[in-house]
Amino acid sequence: MAKEQKKMVDDITSMDEDFAKWYTDICKKAELIEYTSVKGCMVIRPYGYAIWENIQKILDGMFKDEGHENVCMPMFIPESLLQKEKDHVEGFAPECAWVTIGGSEELEERLCVRPTSETLFCEHFKNVVHSYRDLPKLYNQWVSVVRWEKTTRPFLRSREFLWQEGHTLHATAEEAIEETEKMLNVYTKFCQEYLAIPVVQGMKTESDKFAGAERTYCIEALMHDGKALQAGTSHYFGDGFAKAFEIQFSDKDNKLRYPHQTSWGMTTRLIGAIIMTHGDNNGLVLPPAVAPIQAIVIPVAQHKEGVLEKANEVCDRLKKVCRAKIDASSNTPGWKFAEYEMKGVPVRVEIGPKDIENNQCVIVTRHNREKTFVSLDNLEEAVLQKLKEVRDGLYESALENRERRTYICNNTDEIIKALEENGDGFVKAMWCGSEECEDKVKELTGVGSRCIPLEQEHLSDTCVCCGKPAKSMLYWGKAY
Amino acid sequence: MAKEQKKMVDDITSMDEDFAKWYTDICKKAELIEYTSVKGCMVIRPYGYAIWENIQKILDGMFKDEGHENVCMPMFIPESLLQKEKDHVEGFAPECAWVTIGGSEELEERLCVRPTSETLFCEHFKNVVHSYRDLPKLYNQWVSVVRWEKTTRPFLRSREFLWQEGHTLHATAEEAIEETEKMLNVYTKFCQEYLAIPVVQGMKTESDKFAGAERTYCIEALMHDGKALQAGTSHYFGDGFAKAFEIQFSDKDNKLRYPHQTSWGMTTRLIGAIIMTHGDNNGLVLPPAVAPIQAIVIPVAQHKEGVLEKANEVCDRLKKVCRAKIDASSNTPGWKFAEYEMKGVPVRVEIGPKDIENNQCVIVTRHNREKTFVSLDNLEEAVLQKLKEVRDGLYESALENRERRTYICNNTDEIIKALEENGDGFVKAMWCGSEECEDKVKELTGVGSRCIPLEQEHLSDTCVCCGKPAKSMLYWGKAY
Repeated sequence: MAKEQKKMVDDITSMDEDFAKWYTDICKKAELIEYTSVKGCMVIRPYGYAIWENIQKILDGMFKDEGHENVCMPMFIPESLLQKEKDHVEGFAPECAWVTIGGSEELEERLCVRPTSETLFCEHFKNVVHSYRDLPKLYNQWVSVVRWEKTTRPFLRSREFLWQEGHTLHATAEEAIEETEKMLNVYTKFCQEYLAIPVVQGMKTESDKFAGAERTYCIEALMHDGKALQAGTSHYFGDGFAKAFEIQFSDKDNKLRYPHQTSWGMTTRLIGAIIMTHGDNNGLVLPPAVAPIQAIVIPVAQHKEGVLEKANEVCDRLKKVCRAKIDASSNTPGWKFAEYEMKGVPVRVEIGPKDIENNQCVIVTRHNREKTFVSLDNLEEAVLQKLKEVRDGLYESALENRERRTYICNNTDEIIKALEENGDGFVKAMWCGSEECEDKVKELTGVGSRCIPLEQEHLSDTCVCCGKPAKSMLYWGKAY
Repeated sequence: MAKEQKKMVDDITSMDEDFAKWYTDICKKAELIEYTSVKGCMVIRPYGYAIWENIQKILDGMFKDEGHENVCMPMFIPESLLQKEKDHVEGFAPECAWVTIGGSEELEERLCVRPTSETLFCEHFKNVVHSYRDLPKLYNQWVSVVRWEKTTRPFLRSREFLWQEGHTLHATAEEAIEETEKMLNVYTKFCQEYLAIPVVQGMKTESDKFAGAERTYCIEALMHDGKALQAGTSHYFGDGFAKAFEIQFSDKDNKLRYPHQTSWGMTTRLIGAIIMTHGDNNGLVLPPAVAPIQAIVIPVAQHKEGVLEKANEVCDRLKKVCRAKIDASSNTPGWKFAEYEMKGVPVRVEIGPKDIENNQCVIVTRHNREKTFVSLDNLEEAVLQKLKEVRDGLYESALENRERRTYICNNTDEIIKALEENGDGFVKAMWCGSEECEDKVKELTGVGSRCIPLEQEHLSDTCVCCGKPAKSMLYWGKAY
């Protein structure tokens, strides 16, 4: 048993040895993805896709609770449509994939495979919004988008990825800003409560905003290796797109006005965030809310009379309260333990002849390998309690990791020293507000600005870089 | 009230006057779709997309009950991959949209935007299937595909459409054929029980098979205007694709063998089928299972004391048992009646001061406009009963329409006469099995072969066209 377990574990590179290799090992060995001959694109396999389905289901429910409706726009954007908003096209044109031939004929106008759909939503809004009675429009869509990245990594950066993009249109700036912030809070709640990933809420600096946005809000998470990952963004557009697309509505006084717009998105990169926040050297560790299997039942000495029967009974009982599965295959228990650890199943339930004698089972939680003997009388409550403990334990560890790796620095030398001594992490430091200093800090220390956190702290009076009066505190880091 | 109602109804062309115009009027006025500047592509609006979400949810559950898992393949297919199976590429190449430029650079190999994903699944199967233990693979994906059609119509034929495509791989031909037939039965059940659309199960003739398939099963429905619509297909590929893609597995005796494959799909064209099977001159009529709103509560004289309160109470009670909504807007009841008739809401619940006095409400079923007074004590049961009646009523009408429009013919003159006298419909006639006769019947009468029904009848001994011995009975028709 120990040998088999070792064998599988040996298959993954240790995260301390090579974090990047450890990451792709997990993607492959936990059967989340497989590579294809389409460069930069991947197959999301059943186990990986089931995680995405759970993410979708929860998020979609949260969006609908806030009054949003799903729609579906075309996947193509005619070049002239993409070009209507100047900043937007500048930001996205270099990453576009272009369809130039359709049905054996050269197209008169080439079509971009959507990298994002602001322009399509704007065209549609222009068609369907005429009066204040038509507002707000609270739309979302679940689709895939394409951005022609040069270097790609599963989930984190691929040429095609799955996401949701919310697009909303409002009568006033205030209402649109409120929506932008509301959705940032929805994202925050989703990451923290469901994915057990603590995040920093903030705003991107001018140089880091979404192409065409007035403000870009974001949530930033810190991965196990100390690198930052942007987990979601929420943009406020003002009336810039409305003006470019000539979207107008008549208000209550019958005056024509431009509406205000937002968009917000989360992607399959969340699966990458889960791996790099919670995973360990035995494989994936999944937060229970999105785990395709929440409890795996493993019969021990299953050839003995009554064991399989009892294990099935346990699984049937658990199926009523969570996503439970039994593995009654002919593989050894040791093989199964390693297999479901690799797949990150939060709770393992073992049951053998001795347990049956004692009317008990063994529950092992994936994240800390803690073993608990539980009376079968309290099976359901015990497993649900353990699932809650896994979520809480994951969140605490992740928060502890982030706090341990967050350094307060007053000048660039301190940044360099902190990173050298403690490894990569978030740097909190004051900033004068100039792009020049942003660039210089990055050049000198390797960390770029991640966000201006909504929760500001006054660390000192002066900019970490130029020493001039500081305007705000920034989070800095190396980013995925 | 009557005037307003008339006004909205006037907005749709009568189906007897111009069926095609009636159809697109419904698509637009019921707010299912909107056109875009992307030729042949459409926006699916919230009300239309909500129907699709309901279709997805039911079908997805049926697939999972049969052991299928969802995955996600890339949307691009490199040209060399598409070309691996000769018949397949011949069938699809003329309809492909090609990406030739990515990230400002000409691609070395152009990429087709998937028209269907057999080739991608095959490549993946080759990577992950090695032993009989890896079989069967029962996969499905919910994505959009692109086929460069010349003439397009909302839902029925568009350059991009949404669908599910199931792809399965099996150790034996028998098992694959069983799967192909099983999924045809799942589709049949879905159409008949949930969409209330009666279908004929059959097999396509040689000339009408899917590109690369050994057998193509299908279900054919008859629309209100007597034209046929293919509602779903299920293909058996034998081991043709496996050989072309060199997919092999070692069987229990350690011999290398080729697996056998299937694929099956249903698309957003089902929404077109719903419109043209159940719709009428007042608009859409939705089968309850997929209706975004199953019961609309409309307060009458809502300014009077207690009416709105009671109507809200009724709606809250109904929300617990079905998808219910109240319209408490300032529009008149007459406007609301017309609006929700247009949108095809199966059940309308009216409640006014007199009803409240009598502890009752009025239930009107959309499909036959029947009015029933119901005690509020039995509200929930009454509405659920009515929803069931709507489904049954829709199915019966559709079946009656199909039967009335199904003509048994013994020669091409009889076909011409039947169509002239009774309008378009299904023709049942014997066939010798030759493609020549298929073509000739179409040329002479306008109806093409729809399918060789699984339920055969012996109408005569000779082919409807050449008079030689008949091999089977065919359904013929004009098709969408």
